[in-house]
Amino acid sequence: MKECTFIILGATGDLTKRKLIPAIYKLVEDKRIEKFAIIGAASSDTNIDTILQASEKFIPNLNNKTWDKIKTNSYYYRLDFYESSGYPDFKKLIEKVEKKHKLVCNKIFYFATLPKHFKTVTENLAKYKIVEKHENQQECVKCKHPWSRIVYEKPFGDDLKTAKEINKSISKLFHEKQIYRIDHYLGKELVSNIALSRFTNIIFEPLWNNKYIDSVNIKLSENIGVGSRGAFYDKYGAIKDVIQNHMLQILALVAMEQPKELKAEDIRNAKSKILKKVKVKETILGQYDGYTEEKNVDPKSKTETFAALKVCIDNKRWKGVPFYLEAGKYLDKKESLIKIKFKMVKCLLPENCPTDSNYLIIKINPDEGFYLELNTKTPGKSNQITPVKMNFCQSCLFGPNTPAAYENLLYDVINGDQFAFVRSDEIELSWKIVEQINKNKLKLYKYKKGSTGPKLNWSK
Amino acid sequence: MKECTFIILGATGDLTKRKLIPAIYKLVEDKRIEKFAIIGAASSDTNIDTILQASEKFIPNLNNKTWDKIKTNSYYYRLDFYESSGYPDFKKLIEKVEKKHKLVCNKIFYFATLPKHFKTVTENLAKYKIVEKHENQQECVKCKHPWSRIVYEKPFGDDLKTAKEINKSISKLFHEKQIYRIDHYLGKELVSNIALSRFTNIIFEPLWNNKYIDSVNIKLSENIGVGSRGAFYDKYGAIKDVIQNHMLQILALVAMEQPKELKAEDIRNAKSKILKKVKVKETILGQYDGYTEEKNVDPKSKTETFAALKVCIDNKRWKGVPFYLEAGKYLDKKESLIKIKFKMVKCLLPENCPTDSNYLIIKINPDEGFYLELNTKTPGKSNQITPVKMNFCQSCLFGPNTPAAYENLLYDVINGDQFAFVRSDEIELSWKIVEQINKNKLKLYKYKKGSTGPKLNWSK
Repeated sequence: MKECTFIILGATGDLTKRKLIPAIYKLVEDKRIEKFAIIGAASSDTNIDTILQASEKFIPNLNNKTWDKIKTNSYYYRLDFYESSGYPDFKKLIEKVEKKHKLVCNKIFYFATLPKHFKTVTENLAKYKIVEKHENQQECVKCKHPWSRIVYEKPFGDDLKTAKEINKSISKLFHEKQIYRIDHYLGKELVSNIALSRFTNIIFEPLWNNKYIDSVNIKLSENIGVGSRGAFYDKYGAIKDVIQNHMLQILALVAMEQPKELKAEDIRNAKSKILKKVKVKETILGQYDGYTEEKNVDPKSKTETFAALKVCIDNKRWKGVPFYLEAGKYLDKKESLIKIKFKMVKCLLPENCPTDSNYLIIKINPDEGFYLELNTKTPGKSNQITPVKMNFCQSCLFGPNTPAAYENLLYDVINGDQFAFVRSDEIELSWKIVEQINKNKLKLYKYKKGSTGPKLNWSK
Repeated sequence: MKECTFIILGATGDLTKRKLIPAIYKLVEDKRIEKFAIIGAASSDTNIDTILQASEKFIPNLNNKTWDKIKTNSYYYRLDFYESSGYPDFKKLIEKVEKKHKLVCNKIFYFATLPKHFKTVTENLAKYKIVEKHENQQECVKCKHPWSRIVYEKPFGDDLKTAKEINKSISKLFHEKQIYRIDHYLGKELVSNIALSRFTNIIFEPLWNNKYIDSVNIKLSENIGVGSRGAFYDKYGAIKDVIQNHMLQILALVAMEQPKELKAEDIRNAKSKILKKVKVKETILGQYDGYTEEKNVDPKSKTETFAALKVCIDNKRWKGVPFYLEAGKYLDKKESLIKIKFKMVKCLLPENCPTDSNYLIIKINPDEGFYLELNTKTPGKSNQITPVKMNFCQSCLFGPNTPAAYENLLYDVINGDQFAFVRSDEIELSWKIVEQINKNKLKLYKYKKGSTGPKLNWSK
């Protein structure tokens, strides 16, 4: 029987209301967790009802019985992160809640805050023995060895330097097995499927190299602007917001060598190894028209809302294969996908040669699934071909309600499964990669809202 | 503008009424041919109306206007195949019909007869200059070089000896480019797709060998008995009826090396080359209960209504890969398909290893399409896999009315396209393969109607 106390630091923020509360609700509704409590903490003078009420509209088909359970088991604690005096009482509240709900002391501390708070708050949690370091992260229902796990929301740091500082601090206080660096893209079904599909099917690996693959395109397009995230976004921009984390993680999963086994540590080793080989060859930056008039955005901002990178991977498998990473806001569509373009086949047809090669497309969002684009005979013609799609639609098969990323990720934390979380070295390597880009030397292209972004003229 | 006179020898038979008239109707209806006439010939004292009437019910959604055109342009001639005196008048009728319908003398002679008539009738057609030998098989609308093509229905001979005799005789009289040996399976969309798909997509060839393929299964199951074909079937049996032709052709297309180009002669060369390497390792024969009580079947018949062959191909690509050919009547379902089973992948999962390998299934009949069976992540579980199908459904994409085999094949003959027809050496090689089987030494297993046939205990 799974049970856990969720302690959310930064409980008044967007993430809590949009993602975390709905994810916990779904875990309860799906009976993936049976006993639980939620303790929200933040510096605001608010209460749990207000937080829950704000979250309610992000839960589709809300079941009142489950929601009542959430309400009964949720608490709020006003905690000034930088005021030591608040921590002892915070600890007492946690203990009281655990006792009241007969919880066995398994705890998740979820940092839904900006990275600047990670270090101090973590240090205080350790100082006041709210979280203790221990390696044993096995499930234990008798409260002899309960686990405490700490989840850090992305971005993990603002750059390589701050990421290193945080890693250094928390790794002294806790064991790496207690630390879960979230990249919610790794919780998306089709992303976490990459490693499994590559290595549990015999048909992919023989094709997965520069002999057969022409290029790889990873896209993360949004059709909206910065919205209410102006202040945050203006500081980060597209590269730090999505490329440093989501897109480099996807790249690592697509490009990595075969891990020893398909388990967290081996996959992290394989990802880490490939991230060391990534070289940024070219970068194209863009900013949508009107960005500087957005709320909380510097009117003279040079922050990119679009970035496209051409990177290469310096190993035998990928020699000569460009990887294109494209991310942007206010583009023509909302779409996250990976497009693996195979090389052209030698044409054996006397006429009507294939005009395009084969593709494997992995659709991550909003549709989930994958398809193979290949050539087949045009019906009724003996030697003409037509491109067709061989399709696997995730939602067609598994229904539209496959678990959302945050539900999966919380469930993984509860199970002590670090498969979909980013290790300290991966975080630092990813920062290193984006720090190869010298933004000051690059032109910032303007683009129209709803367009496909700046024109991508890659050099040959 | 396509035009042609269809001369059907054996016009009172089942094939004419079920397949040929409907196929010509469809060519007219689809405007794939504009000017045409049909001359049926057989020894019976009948007339064209009777033949057309019998055919009518095999045409779905009959359009009266098209049907009237068929009626107006169709003729019958009573021809005793073995009576020379009838041929000169037959020639005159053909000329009269061509003149009347302003046809430019392109002619298809279709042998819808038993193979025992092929030699004599062909010789008479040549003797009376109804068909003349000429190499030029280019389309010519000015009647300077009209073409005459001769189509032989399968079975082409009763065995290697008779097939050789027919080949020897007709190859003296006509150029191979005039000769079309039908195997209507080659007219089926998904069969004629095999070579095109294999060689216009880069993703298949690297996997298409004994390193990745475990075995190949070619199945041709029928869920009905011999019906009105008792006399014919009892003489031939499953091996001669479908394995010698359809199934060995499919095997050749699946197994052949890459042809120089994807055109008729090169593909025929490749098929011929692979058929030379086929060795029958084991054969299992069956007969359905009650077969000997069927109409026109010998009550003591030992004819097989089921045959399963394990064959191997003696070359580098296929060393160690068994090909299983299974055909039978009165089985549990009507189904023709090719099942390519890939080898098991090395399991890298700490638990829940794949229980089955990848498959590529090509569905020929009654459904058309192909799918890839592969493993994908179980939604919501971080390292469990589920087998799923990546589907390409021919009828979903191209509509249910893709042309039927005979329509495609007649259209190919009109266009002088021998892609889907069997060359003399292939025919003889296929007979040689089935003559490796010594039926007298084999047990004939009885099986229940509607079952899956005899148990297949292949030796290891």
